[in-house]
Amino acid sequence: MVGGGQLARMTCQAAIALGIGFSVLAESPDDSAAQVWARTRLGDYRSAEDLAAFAAGCDVLTFDHEHVPAEHLLALEEAGVQLRPGPAALRFTQDKLAMRDRLTALGIPCPRYAPVKDAADLREFTAGRWPVVLKAVSGGYDGRGVWVCGSAADAAEVFSHGLALMAEEHVGFERELAVLAARSPHNQGAVYPVVQTVQVDGICREVIAPAPRLARDRAEQAQALALRITAELQVTGLLAVELFETAGGLLVNELAMRPHNCGHWTIDGARTSQFEQHLRAVLDLPLGSPAPAAPFTVMANVLGGDGGDVFDRYIHVMAADPGVKVHMYGKAPRPGRKIGHVTVSGEDPEELRGRARRAASYLRWGTEDGT
Amino acid sequence: MVGGGQLARMTCQAAIALGIGFSVLAESPDDSAAQVWARTRLGDYRSAEDLAAFAAGCDVLTFDHEHVPAEHLLALEEAGVQLRPGPAALRFTQDKLAMRDRLTALGIPCPRYAPVKDAADLREFTAGRWPVVLKAVSGGYDGRGVWVCGSAADAAEVFSHGLALMAEEHVGFERELAVLAARSPHNQGAVYPVVQTVQVDGICREVIAPAPRLARDRAEQAQALALRITAELQVTGLLAVELFETAGGLLVNELAMRPHNCGHWTIDGARTSQFEQHLRAVLDLPLGSPAPAAPFTVMANVLGGDGGDVFDRYIHVMAADPGVKVHMYGKAPRPGRKIGHVTVSGEDPEELRGRARRAASYLRWGTEDGT
Repeated sequence: MVGGGQLARMTCQAAIALGIGFSVLAESPDDSAAQVWARTRLGDYRSAEDLAAFAAGCDVLTFDHEHVPAEHLLALEEAGVQLRPGPAALRFTQDKLAMRDRLTALGIPCPRYAPVKDAADLREFTAGRWPVVLKAVSGGYDGRGVWVCGSAADAAEVFSHGLALMAEEHVGFERELAVLAARSPHNQGAVYPVVQTVQVDGICREVIAPAPRLARDRAEQAQALALRITAELQVTGLLAVELFETAGGLLVNELAMRPHNCGHWTIDGARTSQFEQHLRAVLDLPLGSPAPAAPFTVMANVLGGDGGDVFDRYIHVMAADPGVKVHMYGKAPRPGRKIGHVTVSGEDPEELRGRARRAASYLRWGTEDGT
Repeated sequence: MVGGGQLARMTCQAAIALGIGFSVLAESPDDSAAQVWARTRLGDYRSAEDLAAFAAGCDVLTFDHEHVPAEHLLALEEAGVQLRPGPAALRFTQDKLAMRDRLTALGIPCPRYAPVKDAADLREFTAGRWPVVLKAVSGGYDGRGVWVCGSAADAAEVFSHGLALMAEEHVGFERELAVLAARSPHNQGAVYPVVQTVQVDGICREVIAPAPRLARDRAEQAQALALRITAELQVTGLLAVELFETAGGLLVNELAMRPHNCGHWTIDGARTSQFEQHLRAVLDLPLGSPAPAAPFTVMANVLGGDGGDVFDRYIHVMAADPGVKVHMYGKAPRPGRKIGHVTVSGEDPEELRGRARRAASYLRWGTEDGT
């Protein structure tokens, strides 16, 4: 796995159980996965040489992020390295405009969008309706690279960065949903229950699995859509589809082709964790059951607060709620940084949300207001 | 953790989630845990120097086996090292006669027993009733160090090894049960549901959690007994109590003070895995919920068969049953050696036993007869 972040770290847990020869390419021995994993190689995912040297020791290469330069991916593929997912699929996670064009061509509902190179393009797109969303065509994550602009002046500030941009309508959604599917080279597919995600400032705070009170036909539509995208875009491994639920139906927001924050609940709340599922898919093993292990599971992210030793806070969190599952990533707390998550499982999603929020808030030890 | 076997390996999974600075003292880089864990130190658990050097980097020392020489444990404790469990408790896992004497003094029901140094002692113990069980007072595990003798001739063969021995009545049990409890230095206790264990030739084959059709008062008696032993013997960390269920009630068979085969089901089948519980207990963190996550979970051990690459068999096992959870230990298959386990969760223990046996049998690829 290229990348040594928390996704790689949690994949290590799955690799231990499967007993496979799993290796991680990390940038630093302090990386989240490198702290724990014996088979860690140090190198730079932006270096063709480092990637090739790492690939030489692997049967299959997969990724914990989408930042490996596209030209390096193509070169590795040409050199015969098994990339899962491959460059043809990963392109749609690195180029949001290409993703929108492709999904639209497939008839998959997306927000209205257009490439915009300047204020004139944007004026034409908005036709006077604000706010509008500007997105960097490549490179964004966790709210970075996305700007909600209320006026032409806001947009001018974004244009001043000199990035390749696209505009999207500001969707008045009822809530955000996400669905996680897996596909193996054998073309086996598996899809998890549709979840509700709660985002604040573009960062995921909570995931409720399954999404409460979601109409069955809409859930099935979302699952079918995710499976269709994995096939059409030839995704191997996991695909996360972030969706807006609107009065008019579902719209695709973002895609990711790796384990994803919207699937962290599966470690404690599903028969097969997303990390194991990703490994099984990229190794072309039969996929595991995506069935939930409890009626509801709620995950809350722990965001870095004002520093200090999170471990000391365990005593309080664990004493207050013996049913909460804590997952920490070994990352130094910085404001807004995801440094861990908690999950709770049970019957009542609102009760679970309260418990998950309290635990995450306490671990943060910050000014968390519970939103 | 001193020892790099599969118990340490599975503890690594829990250490990843807790984000703690967990280190392993392994004998070889090929050890089950050493294969995966970055913070592995190589050394010999029989060497006072290696133990002291390892302990110097740890706040707390715990164990994946009971084979560290007692004199080294005492020396470490005198040097101020926090041992959890401590030598006063571990003594009862290293000296079965001391364990029996202590439990009997506490009024805890055990099989009738006596130290025996020769055939004359044994003759007095058996009073002509055969079979009888001879046990090495120290050093046995997985059926080693235990002999069921049908005659004085069988016993003579055992005496010829020159080991310190004790005799025990051969208990005509209805079934075998086990119960796993945890205790922290703060004196918090937690106890898992009582399970049924199925042993063949002294090796655990299956665990059914909870034990089907166990009378509630008997289950509570077993749980109370385990909690009482943790307190009386000052166990910190986990205590596994193996029990015989007889027409006359429960008898204690063996004790272990570490994660135990009878608790492997908790990884997939309980809110808190035994490995996380052990870490929480020895770190004096509040204990996690031992509640089951499914009505029943069955675990079956994968025993080494005739060699070959187990990985190839995954395709069949995973395709046949997407709900089976596979845990492999990275150990070379040798006949009778525990090289992994599988678990399945659901409603019907007999159906689950069938599924678990099939998966374990296929992974073994041997002459497994399903018993």
